[in-house]
Amino acid sequence: MQIGIDIGGTNIRLGVVTHEGKILARKKIAVGSKKSPEEIIALLESLVKSIGRKETVKAVGLGVPGIVSAREGIVYSSPHYPLWKNFSLARRLSRKLKMPVVMDNDANMIARGELWKGAGKNWKHFLMITLGTGIGGALVTNGEMFTGTRGFAGEMGHMNVEPDGLPCGCGSKGCWETIVSGSGTKNFDTFARYLGIGLASLVNVTGIEKIVLGGGVMGSADLFLEKAKAELKNRIYAKTFEGIEIVPAELGDDAGILGSARMAFRRL
Amino acid sequence: MQIGIDIGGTNIRLGVVTHEGKILARKKIAVGSKKSPEEIIALLESLVKSIGRKETVKAVGLGVPGIVSAREGIVYSSPHYPLWKNFSLARRLSRKLKMPVVMDNDANMIARGELWKGAGKNWKHFLMITLGTGIGGALVTNGEMFTGTRGFAGEMGHMNVEPDGLPCGCGSKGCWETIVSGSGTKNFDTFARYLGIGLASLVNVTGIEKIVLGGGVMGSADLFLEKAKAELKNRIYAKTFEGIEIVPAELGDDAGILGSARMAFRRL
Repeated sequence: MQIGIDIGGTNIRLGVVTHEGKILARKKIAVGSKKSPEEIIALLESLVKSIGRKETVKAVGLGVPGIVSAREGIVYSSPHYPLWKNFSLARRLSRKLKMPVVMDNDANMIARGELWKGAGKNWKHFLMITLGTGIGGALVTNGEMFTGTRGFAGEMGHMNVEPDGLPCGCGSKGCWETIVSGSGTKNFDTFARYLGIGLASLVNVTGIEKIVLGGGVMGSADLFLEKAKAELKNRIYAKTFEGIEIVPAELGDDAGILGSARMAFRRL
Repeated sequence: MQIGIDIGGTNIRLGVVTHEGKILARKKIAVGSKKSPEEIIALLESLVKSIGRKETVKAVGLGVPGIVSAREGIVYSSPHYPLWKNFSLARRLSRKLKMPVVMDNDANMIARGELWKGAGKNWKHFLMITLGTGIGGALVTNGEMFTGTRGFAGEMGHMNVEPDGLPCGCGSKGCWETIVSGSGTKNFDTFARYLGIGLASLVNVTGIEKIVLGGGVMGSADLFLEKAKAELKNRIYAKTFEGIEIVPAELGDDAGILGSARMAFRRL
């Protein structure tokens, strides 16, 4: 068994996961954004220890919001946790726990969960897009995460959709997530239009026609999804549109726990 | 040896290529856009036969501009050849020549050439972008072409950069190639700005930081490339920009011949 941990902007969720993908025990606790590196390590250590099953858990997988290096286990920066800068989270936690810790950004862990046990399990290639406060994105190709040259793939929220649009936290302007996210527009016609425009660009670039949409905004999908598909259809070749399938994510808050545990199983 | 063929909008180029990537013989002829499927097959057959070396050539690779299925060898549509619609070019040519014919779109063949013998040969992942009449694009991941769900990846020229921009031949508006191409703007400040905006979106989505830029417009790179990089820098994370390398294509008109021959070697 492995432990999967999903660090969100508001809560930390963790679970003990079997190799079949069953979650045997769970915890969820609120976490403040002022946590220092030392504090988050101490908190994660106590959470892992308190969830028990010490003798059977072999490793921990950890999903972290922000710009991270999965290979080196470093958090470069995290929008929710301003004190985390170039911080070797995986190695330091591994030393405390005396077991391997694998790490990746939260969006990639969610995609691994949906790939393993959710909406993406029958697809060779798919795009995972989580419409939350911002946009989380991930690319699954050939049944694996595609993370790019140094692990920074899937920053789809920062694809440009308006060259002189609203300022974005990343330093650019008019990024997709300035409009298409929980903190973007509240006008669903605009939201739907730009969702379709962005999806069209993603499909044109990647040739990936299968899309899993997750996140809290999907609770209102009936207000925007059909309009977004109509916009998408107008902006890609008819031949490509024939292959498009857009489905909702299936695992909700469990996706990050399962995906993190899955990465731990795969790496060991 | 294999024969690599590159069908362009104006010319057909072909060459006899050794397994080390040497071009032993070449031909180039002009081709009119009114060619029917029957006429292009007859022309390709006579070109292959006239270039000789029949006893040693085992297969043909063929790059075609347009929307094609590499797997099925079908040309769905081609902007330069309006008579080619849902046309089984590879299989029909293979029957005439009595040897295997592999096919893909021209941009993917150019990328295969640069991957094999050109600017991309030391990179695991890179983006190939050809700035011609339109924009040709291809994604190389893990040393292989990434072609998406059904082979339509790399349509980067149809990534949106202006939601209400100029009409594009694809049916959408404000596609990247309406501005950043030989037939787009002649104002190099605008060209540079949108080149940078588009590259930023591609890097954010794919996490691929290595870019090969080809095509005729690159002869004027000193008028726009530094400005484009400055725009790119403003629109991606500093950590990501550290990894960016943008280099010119190295193989010119040979890229398509070499890449097509390479695909023939790889498939057989």
